[in-house]
Amino acid sequence: MPLLLTDADVAARLDAPTAVAAMRDALVAAHEGRLIAPPRASAVLEGGRLVMTAGHLADEWYGFRSYDTFGHADGEQLVVLHDARDGRIRAIAVGEEIGSRRTGALGGAAVDLLARPDAATVGVIGSGRQAWTQLWATAAVRPVSSVRVFSRSFARCAAFAARATAELGVAAAPVSSAAEAVRGQDLVIVATTSEQPVLSGADLAPGAHVNLVGFKQRGRAEFGPDVIARAGLIATDSPAQARSYQPPLALPVGLLTRDLRAVAAGVLPGRSDPDEISVFLSVGLAGTEVFLLDRVAALLTSADVS
Amino acid sequence: MPLLLTDADVAARLDAPTAVAAMRDALVAAHEGRLIAPPRASAVLEGGRLVMTAGHLADEWYGFRSYDTFGHADGEQLVVLHDARDGRIRAIAVGEEIGSRRTGALGGAAVDLLARPDAATVGVIGSGRQAWTQLWATAAVRPVSSVRVFSRSFARCAAFAARATAELGVAAAPVSSAAEAVRGQDLVIVATTSEQPVLSGADLAPGAHVNLVGFKQRGRAEFGPDVIARAGLIATDSPAQARSYQPPLALPVGLLTRDLRAVAAGVLPGRSDPDEISVFLSVGLAGTEVFLLDRVAALLTSADVS
Repeated sequence: MPLLLTDADVAARLDAPTAVAAMRDALVAAHEGRLIAPPRASAVLEGGRLVMTAGHLADEWYGFRSYDTFGHADGEQLVVLHDARDGRIRAIAVGEEIGSRRTGALGGAAVDLLARPDAATVGVIGSGRQAWTQLWATAAVRPVSSVRVFSRSFARCAAFAARATAELGVAAAPVSSAAEAVRGQDLVIVATTSEQPVLSGADLAPGAHVNLVGFKQRGRAEFGPDVIARAGLIATDSPAQARSYQPPLALPVGLLTRDLRAVAAGVLPGRSDPDEISVFLSVGLAGTEVFLLDRVAALLTSADVS
Repeated sequence: MPLLLTDADVAARLDAPTAVAAMRDALVAAHEGRLIAPPRASAVLEGGRLVMTAGHLADEWYGFRSYDTFGHADGEQLVVLHDARDGRIRAIAVGEEIGSRRTGALGGAAVDLLARPDAATVGVIGSGRQAWTQLWATAAVRPVSSVRVFSRSFARCAAFAARATAELGVAAAPVSSAAEAVRGQDLVIVATTSEQPVLSGADLAPGAHVNLVGFKQRGRAEFGPDVIARAGLIATDSPAQARSYQPPLALPVGLLTRDLRAVAAGVLPGRSDPDEISVFLSVGLAGTEVFLLDRVAALLTSADVS
């Protein structure tokens, strides 16, 4: 009988340091060719698609995430982990937490690899689940002291700030504009559903690091060319996935000078200049949901034993 | 929290009449265009593939079966059922039973729609899980009185026969050749992993009905042209899937004169001549695993309520 994990199980057991460490390991495994992540596969139904993104860590496990495009507010995803030795299913996670925490933890790994070591102030645009997991993971890798958050809903920003204080122990406040959230901050997280720019390049402080989590396609992006123009270093977790976007990526792929997998493996450098602005374009390296579920399942198994 | 069903759960709750009724309903739904079943989608891993076959019953549910091609003896499949109204996952089945019982029940539906009403004697070639579910479903639609079974392992045939007597209440015996299993029988089930013919057309009695469950591709089929030459009526549960085989189907697709979906819907006739030999080529109409899981989940839910 496989482990069946709900969102509550994942939230209760998976802490941010563990998640970020897992995603750093996943980036290195991908760089070394041990993490195999083929293009997504999909089946067309009436009014939507079912999508499968698969991953395989040679000799250890294989599995997939499935999700659909029907757009149900409470629609549930699945992440499935098979043992590579016998093909049995070791764990199944139902819901959103594995997916959003792995995206957050990839963002945390990017902050750890690219931001200034002393980065402590955070500006957040967006107050949803993805914005939260980015902050959750960031606080595991930098001495975060204060957070300003802006989104279209002041009430949601206030709740987000209260949660940051309660769960992460940091000073946090809702603010009334994106500029107010971003100006002077060491770290900037943009995690919205906007198809129009919400971040102004002019607001970025020298030496800032930016995680871009939302739409990043031509004609459909939460940032504009002014942000890219200020960046001295642009990284992504999967250049191949970024190249395959349709519509295409909102910037020339040649500007993606830092493959985050190579940075994690120590083959490419991170930041070289403390005043440089670094930008991480999060595309969601495939196979990483299963990678994270493997780690969560190991935690639960050891907890059962102890 | 979705229902998580093991093979034992499915075996305990799903009886053959329910399964066959579900597959007749699925055939009719497919004929009417309500059951949507796109081509399978797959992701290439190292040394194998992950495969997803999806299905969607408009306004009611959608979901998929996943399996892989690594060839592990104990590898587990998954069948997942989403509620179409809110996208939530209602049930997950882990293992083989949903898959093999749906194939068996499609075979049972074929027997019900194509075999003589008084068919009572059964010859089985093959003694594995697929052979068993074919017999299990057949016994729900015809007054089966005796069974003869042949496979490469006499011990497995003896166990199969003992199970048939114990669970289905029929006289059953292992025999020492395919010819002995098949000659004079009203119904013939061929469910092997053989890539060479194991059934001789000359052994088929007039009026027999044959279910062919194993390989049926050119150069890789458990039956030869002599079987096809004796058939007056050849049916399949999905002409489209049969046409898409690579290598191609072992017979001209033009010989598939009975779309079983249309027969189930009453649009095409079944058998017209009691002495005609009818053959069902089981290709496994896609989407039917999710269709069956929906019925099993409903049984469990009503059992919980009562």
